[in-house]
Amino acid sequence: MSASPSVGPSASTIDAVKEKARRLSILSMMATTAAGSGHPTSCMSAAELVAGIFFHAMKFDVANPNSGDSDRFVLSKGHAAPVLYAALAEAGVFPISRLMTLRQLTSELEGHPTPLIHGVDAATGSLGQGMSVAAGLAIGARLDKSPTRVYVLLGDGEMAEGEIWEAAEFAGHYKLDNLTVIADVNALGQSEPTMYQHDMEIYRRKFESEGFSTEVVDGHDVAAILAALDRAKAIRGKPQAIVARTIKGHGASFCAGKEHWHGKAFSKDELAAAIKEIGGAPVVVPPDPGKSYVRTSLPKPPDFPALAAPEYDPAKPVATREAYGFALRRLGAVNPHVVALSGDVKNSTFSELFGDAFPDHFFQGYIAEQNMVSAAVGLAARGKVPFADTFACFLSRAYDNVRMAAISRANINLCGSHCGVSIGEDGPSQMALEDIAMFRAIHGSAVLYPSDAVSAERLTEAMARRPGINYLRTSRPKTAILYSKDEKFPLPGFKVPRQSAQDRVTVIGAGITVHEALKAADELKSAGTAIRVVDLYCVKPIDGEALAEQIAATGGRLVTVEDHWPEGGVGEAVLGALAEAGVAPSKYRMLAVRNMPHSGKPDELVDAFGISARHIVAAVREIA
Amino acid sequence: MSASPSVGPSASTIDAVKEKARRLSILSMMATTAAGSGHPTSCMSAAELVAGIFFHAMKFDVANPNSGDSDRFVLSKGHAAPVLYAALAEAGVFPISRLMTLRQLTSELEGHPTPLIHGVDAATGSLGQGMSVAAGLAIGARLDKSPTRVYVLLGDGEMAEGEIWEAAEFAGHYKLDNLTVIADVNALGQSEPTMYQHDMEIYRRKFESEGFSTEVVDGHDVAAILAALDRAKAIRGKPQAIVARTIKGHGASFCAGKEHWHGKAFSKDELAAAIKEIGGAPVVVPPDPGKSYVRTSLPKPPDFPALAAPEYDPAKPVATREAYGFALRRLGAVNPHVVALSGDVKNSTFSELFGDAFPDHFFQGYIAEQNMVSAAVGLAARGKVPFADTFACFLSRAYDNVRMAAISRANINLCGSHCGVSIGEDGPSQMALEDIAMFRAIHGSAVLYPSDAVSAERLTEAMARRPGINYLRTSRPKTAILYSKDEKFPLPGFKVPRQSAQDRVTVIGAGITVHEALKAADELKSAGTAIRVVDLYCVKPIDGEALAEQIAATGGRLVTVEDHWPEGGVGEAVLGALAEAGVAPSKYRMLAVRNMPHSGKPDELVDAFGISARHIVAAVREIA
Repeated sequence: MSASPSVGPSASTIDAVKEKARRLSILSMMATTAAGSGHPTSCMSAAELVAGIFFHAMKFDVANPNSGDSDRFVLSKGHAAPVLYAALAEAGVFPISRLMTLRQLTSELEGHPTPLIHGVDAATGSLGQGMSVAAGLAIGARLDKSPTRVYVLLGDGEMAEGEIWEAAEFAGHYKLDNLTVIADVNALGQSEPTMYQHDMEIYRRKFESEGFSTEVVDGHDVAAILAALDRAKAIRGKPQAIVARTIKGHGASFCAGKEHWHGKAFSKDELAAAIKEIGGAPVVVPPDPGKSYVRTSLPKPPDFPALAAPEYDPAKPVATREAYGFALRRLGAVNPHVVALSGDVKNSTFSELFGDAFPDHFFQGYIAEQNMVSAAVGLAARGKVPFADTFACFLSRAYDNVRMAAISRANINLCGSHCGVSIGEDGPSQMALEDIAMFRAIHGSAVLYPSDAVSAERLTEAMARRPGINYLRTSRPKTAILYSKDEKFPLPGFKVPRQSAQDRVTVIGAGITVHEALKAADELKSAGTAIRVVDLYCVKPIDGEALAEQIAATGGRLVTVEDHWPEGGVGEAVLGALAEAGVAPSKYRMLAVRNMPHSGKPDELVDAFGISARHIVAAVREIA
Repeated sequence: MSASPSVGPSASTIDAVKEKARRLSILSMMATTAAGSGHPTSCMSAAELVAGIFFHAMKFDVANPNSGDSDRFVLSKGHAAPVLYAALAEAGVFPISRLMTLRQLTSELEGHPTPLIHGVDAATGSLGQGMSVAAGLAIGARLDKSPTRVYVLLGDGEMAEGEIWEAAEFAGHYKLDNLTVIADVNALGQSEPTMYQHDMEIYRRKFESEGFSTEVVDGHDVAAILAALDRAKAIRGKPQAIVARTIKGHGASFCAGKEHWHGKAFSKDELAAAIKEIGGAPVVVPPDPGKSYVRTSLPKPPDFPALAAPEYDPAKPVATREAYGFALRRLGAVNPHVVALSGDVKNSTFSELFGDAFPDHFFQGYIAEQNMVSAAVGLAARGKVPFADTFACFLSRAYDNVRMAAISRANINLCGSHCGVSIGEDGPSQMALEDIAMFRAIHGSAVLYPSDAVSAERLTEAMARRPGINYLRTSRPKTAILYSKDEKFPLPGFKVPRQSAQDRVTVIGAGITVHEALKAADELKSAGTAIRVVDLYCVKPIDGEALAEQIAATGGRLVTVEDHWPEGGVGEAVLGALAEAGVAPSKYRMLAVRNMPHSGKPDELVDAFGISARHIVAAVREIA
């Protein structure tokens, strides 16, 4: 029984948590020494905090810690993984013998946490992301009207990351009173003391100015920690920050508060000295039977009824970005798990169509892309189907978050609008020309690039069904409707909107370059040359063999054309897929943006930067 | 003459700045209406602030605003470009007639600022980066013992970006009293009101908690603005923040403080109404003669004496990351322009070797990669040769900053250590597997990937000489010395450490996979198959024709092997370069990391994830 906040935790509770803290600290040291690497001193600074969170504050289902109304814990300072693993083991999630398999190829207990461990919702280890994940979990719990509380442990080193403050302002703005942040301020970074060292008041003020209830505690005083956790639980209308003054390597005088101990496992002698100094009863770990406790039941996007066919007037051009908004709104009507976030551009990306229809399921992410993407990871961990959008170029700001989302095995959907030079006058800072390369190099991703509104809607629907990281690249200009409303767009797949038995060259485009390729086909046809036009709406994955058949039908002659840099884009994706299929084009021209773009009118730029119909015609003539 | 701070600016000064503000506002409206797009209301909120900065606070050489002791201005809210352009024109940097060419393909005045405009040091338009650039300019000025002051104008929308607070903590930590931040708080984002709207106290407190001197002013009260700028100039030991309450669209009642006016140029009627309401004498703009004022004198990396040859015992393996540190230290001894920054990992990336030798030229960037990279852009704009480092995977956090650095035509050097699965036990969150894709897709970049300490040193030296964005990918494990100390490593280029007339297959590796390829060559040789091993130390640019010759010598049979995802990495780079050269391999196998990695021992992982000598041998046997 927890004592009421006014009375404070009982002496027996405090003693029990103290003992847990002692065990967590010792087990962390033992595990890292057994592994021969790791971060014992980072665990030792957090042992009392983690013990207080796990063995006093949190209520969770040991058999299913990542589900239902269980409270959640995010270890943002992921390098302290062993102390989390020790807490999970002590709680009974898996046997403590597993701890001694830390960092082995055959163990689910990796150097930094991943969701393959029961009790972990998202991978951490790239610092500064955990609080955003926790905020996503917290808004997800609120949507579910669940009593779940979310705890997140930050390190002070990572509090230099701007994303921490994006997450703090987001949590403050949405008044996430089911979120408790605990900051482990041990004053030592990896390479030297942190910026603010033990100036606790700076951290407290920073949280306070973001709308948190705040307090400073001694992070090794269990009674103080438990009382603070109790008080946090009682706060309404605000997230809470407990800023804890700690000592890195606490408990072992040879390293406590000393530099040059980051990320160093103890020798056996050091381990023995530290355990002796910490004292108490021996911590006995039985041999591990070798049974893996890897978590296989990861969230999957829930099924939902097929959407009605898109309805467009074939004569009326519509931007793919707008079709994304229509599709999101259709999704919202049949799939209550769908949530959307936007980086203060919902009126440009058109997610406002969803937000206006389902205001409770829409979250304004403001201009803070990193937090938006990691919050989506938290939402996905709670079984939501998040769609997050901004201009495609600004998703580059969240690339690390997308990378970590893949390691988190998260199911998130990202839409980047305003790709390429075809945006026109705003100039290069607003043009995504690297996003295909960026998203292709994410493990397990799909990279979708619709050329018309029908495909944009269908691909948006496909994203909501597909596990993993899905990226939709939408364009600013209105484009002609190319497909009938009943057309299917499987993944992988492509369309062949123009073909004949006489085709001399295959031209592969995507997005706006499909329209340029069709214009080129018209012009070439009137001059007597037939070409095949492929719409590669799914840039990843690619069925290389199916694509090879198309190219073989035109004698192996190929042109690719894309509104993207040459590196890592459509052209290289095609070359790579063909190579995997064991073939190569006989003659090939790659059209892509090769010079730094400039402001100008969209059509002017598409031509000036080498990807217009005129350039396609010229490339075809070179190899036809 | 400026009045002293205690007396305050004179009435005539105030009137003159008011008139400038009126003209800036009107010219911004006129330019955007002429362009048919742009952000007039964002300019109108800032007109008095920009006028105060340019026509009262700043001292700069109109003929050379980006050089010497000139004060600098960074427009972090880059979409307000027209108000900056108007200020530069009114100051005499170029004729006001140029303003009417805004956003045209033939004009240097793009939709968002780039350094092709005199008076602009870095491209802005991806929000939240300008303060980091300004901090870089400010530390550069301090290094130069220059009286240069740096002014940066922030928008309130962008203050949601975490990087703003990374920059603020950096500026506070380094006590950059030559930096004045002016925040234009107009309470309206693009899609809706900002998070804090007109709660000025929140912004003030946030800056104050980062160690700034702060004050809140009415951003349309010229007398108050000038007095605040004067007070800021007098502050010692702290950066200063002037938080200005403004109205978006100030001066034109049809849009002032109203939603849905973001990024909309006025119609001619709206323009006339706004000008009438603002009043005063007509602003007459003569026809533009069409002469471009594009800035061609961009900073270049200064020359320096050749470094002494690297000295390594050929029998003693050395990690490429350590060789980077040695090279940096050698550079520092002969090139006083070299500065280094590290994201709290200098003891892992080895830039501490430089920092220990040249403490004045080393800046601890803490765990805040975005700020670190944009600060490097600011340093480069001041003619410094910045090297910034962190684990390669964490550079993904600064990808938008790198993208903007390329648009800024910045000369910056980035080193990412701990690439790939070969790092071992720390697990996937610490493994860069997308960095080659990421950096290849940066315009004008070089992507360098040394396999041994000699090449690492020589490539580091090459970076300090090469304009543009240079990326060095270093590895964690110690690797054998492959090259003699006098070996040259031109860009582009590759080495062929193993070859014979009997070679059946070319194996292209880079970094650690070169060593795996050499092991495979030994094994295959003893089984009677000779292979050629190519060390592609320069992954971008690639001389496709030279590489094609090597592959032709082995009958077109090719294996590529890389510690990176298949997408956008070495394999695709090679395929792309060969395609540009008009050739394709006859038989090809791509070895890359295809499954999500895991913790484990480095050698174990290199093998388990398919890129070890064993896999190379198998791939060679398939196609030999």
